[in-house]
Amino acid sequence: MTENSGATASFGPTTTVTEVGEQRLISLIGERLQQASLSSQVSPAAGVEVEVDSGDDAAVLRLGSDRVVVSTDVLVEERHFRVRWSTGTDVGVKVAAANLADIAAMGAQPVALVVALVIPGATKLEWVLDLASGMAQEAARCGAKIVGGDISSGDAISIAATAVGNLPTEATAVTLAGAQVGDQVAIAGKLGWSAAGLAVLSRGFSSPKIVVDAHRQPVPDYASALAARELGATSMTDVSDGLVADLAQLARASGVAAVINLEDLPKAEELIQASAALNVELASWILGGGEDHSFIATFAPDVVPPAGFTVIGQVGERVAGTPIVQVLDQAGEPLDLRGYRGYVHY
Amino acid sequence: MTENSGATASFGPTTTVTEVGEQRLISLIGERLQQASLSSQVSPAAGVEVEVDSGDDAAVLRLGSDRVVVSTDVLVEERHFRVRWSTGTDVGVKVAAANLADIAAMGAQPVALVVALVIPGATKLEWVLDLASGMAQEAARCGAKIVGGDISSGDAISIAATAVGNLPTEATAVTLAGAQVGDQVAIAGKLGWSAAGLAVLSRGFSSPKIVVDAHRQPVPDYASALAARELGATSMTDVSDGLVADLAQLARASGVAAVINLEDLPKAEELIQASAALNVELASWILGGGEDHSFIATFAPDVVPPAGFTVIGQVGERVAGTPIVQVLDQAGEPLDLRGYRGYVHY
Repeated sequence: MTENSGATASFGPTTTVTEVGEQRLISLIGERLQQASLSSQVSPAAGVEVEVDSGDDAAVLRLGSDRVVVSTDVLVEERHFRVRWSTGTDVGVKVAAANLADIAAMGAQPVALVVALVIPGATKLEWVLDLASGMAQEAARCGAKIVGGDISSGDAISIAATAVGNLPTEATAVTLAGAQVGDQVAIAGKLGWSAAGLAVLSRGFSSPKIVVDAHRQPVPDYASALAARELGATSMTDVSDGLVADLAQLARASGVAAVINLEDLPKAEELIQASAALNVELASWILGGGEDHSFIATFAPDVVPPAGFTVIGQVGERVAGTPIVQVLDQAGEPLDLRGYRGYVHY
Repeated sequence: MTENSGATASFGPTTTVTEVGEQRLISLIGERLQQASLSSQVSPAAGVEVEVDSGDDAAVLRLGSDRVVVSTDVLVEERHFRVRWSTGTDVGVKVAAANLADIAAMGAQPVALVVALVIPGATKLEWVLDLASGMAQEAARCGAKIVGGDISSGDAISIAATAVGNLPTEATAVTLAGAQVGDQVAIAGKLGWSAAGLAVLSRGFSSPKIVVDAHRQPVPDYASALAARELGATSMTDVSDGLVADLAQLARASGVAAVINLEDLPKAEELIQASAALNVELASWILGGGEDHSFIATFAPDVVPPAGFTVIGQVGERVAGTPIVQVLDQAGEPLDLRGYRGYVHY
């Protein structure tokens, strides 16, 4: 995996979002926000401080003695889900899980969700009510509640959820940036199941049901993420774009490299069968598949990772000219990872 | 204004959102959320409590010793704004103001915003960067910051923003539900300006510029809302749907009625001129126009409302068969308020 270049491209008044691409768009928005806050004449509220800004899984705000963790995610019909493949409940679980996993990936306890729905008037009422049930059901899995929302009409369904979490007074947020050379890399949860389920559905099949279900309703292991923070995880994120893509983002933020061993990665029998049946390389799902919302965490060498985590590799020094994430096969040879990048919107 | 009925209509698997309508949709979603949280097996996080649930301007969460206030709002292209009438900056200011005003309407200090953007790839980059600037600029007006976001492609622009605020330890949230018989009703900010600006633009005109500007960029008086809480306002909300519609919602939640005097309402010369030029009844803008995000608050009879507020009426007893909000003309006769309801999405 190589670094994103292209941050030097120029643009004019007719340049479109597609022309600059997603990464550059996000960095340009960041610059604009910086400029605007520098020109602010009102000082921030007393006792309030932004501890972790955008760029991590979630933002961390200090309000008096407590820390509040906030994250937002939007799912759009035909981009992130299809009404013919997913019930309202499935989509509700999915959007809630994506947001709640971001909170847990900071080591924070998810507390609440608010949701902004755009719903065409011709949408079936049952679908919308099932969406609400799915969100509430997933929130309940980690002790959180839906506390508010807004609804608008629109031409396609989109669901923007925002999760709020709590970091106890004594806790430290687990960011992307804390991995240290020598740390263990560990994973809690499934890898590649959602991608396999999507591949099955895309070919017009509906089994193996177990991978289709995993695509429809991810099951983040929130308790393991909180246990990782308690045991002093040095960095953590959830797999939303793919193991290699998300681990690369973590390694980049930490200024380190990561080496993982293909043979240590979880490879369930159901996945192996589905990969044979669909003639898809198993590694492409395991290394490149997103949306399972498993947790990647790093731990100091002397720490035994909590139950739920499997050690899959080590953190090493960043060496110019070598990939930030390497995956070694059984012979210890690095795999070619081009093709395992995350989903790009533009 | 009469109460919404129709909560007894039945529905089946083919019923659409349009068929049940917005109010009924929201109440059905509320029932589903209630059911789902009753079936929860995980107890809420320790020390965490939902003090004010959905249905008010914002939700209030107690986390340890602090209270966090959360609200979300979504703006959709062609429903809430038009790219040909509003710059990116205008729309950024508008979505930020709508959210931050909801936080201030609880008497809380706005702290942060996160934003979930759906942006078609063909959108001009400049428009999106201006949107970011507008949001940051409005946030800076009340000491808040943009701390995170998510971007997806989609067929139409939509912007879902979520604001987070802080209620100091000693403060009480100012909800919709606290107005008492005998209280004064007061308003801080403009009434009808945004509606007048929209009417001007809809007719193809661009002046009076001052009302067009007010439509493009609302200017909520956050400081007055915070001062209202400090002076013990008994209830508060912001005018997003229209004075009559929002005051009716407040009166309903408080179990009271409200009477306001047309002659006490702010009527600027610019509005009078625009109403004459466009041949639109001035009262329809002042009583029915939303999106100015002025603050309506109620105060005990012996309290002098803070600077910025004008007393416009009184809280009275709810009497069956009489309107929940009455507006009296100069002769003391009640106006016919049918036609001054808020915007309905379905």
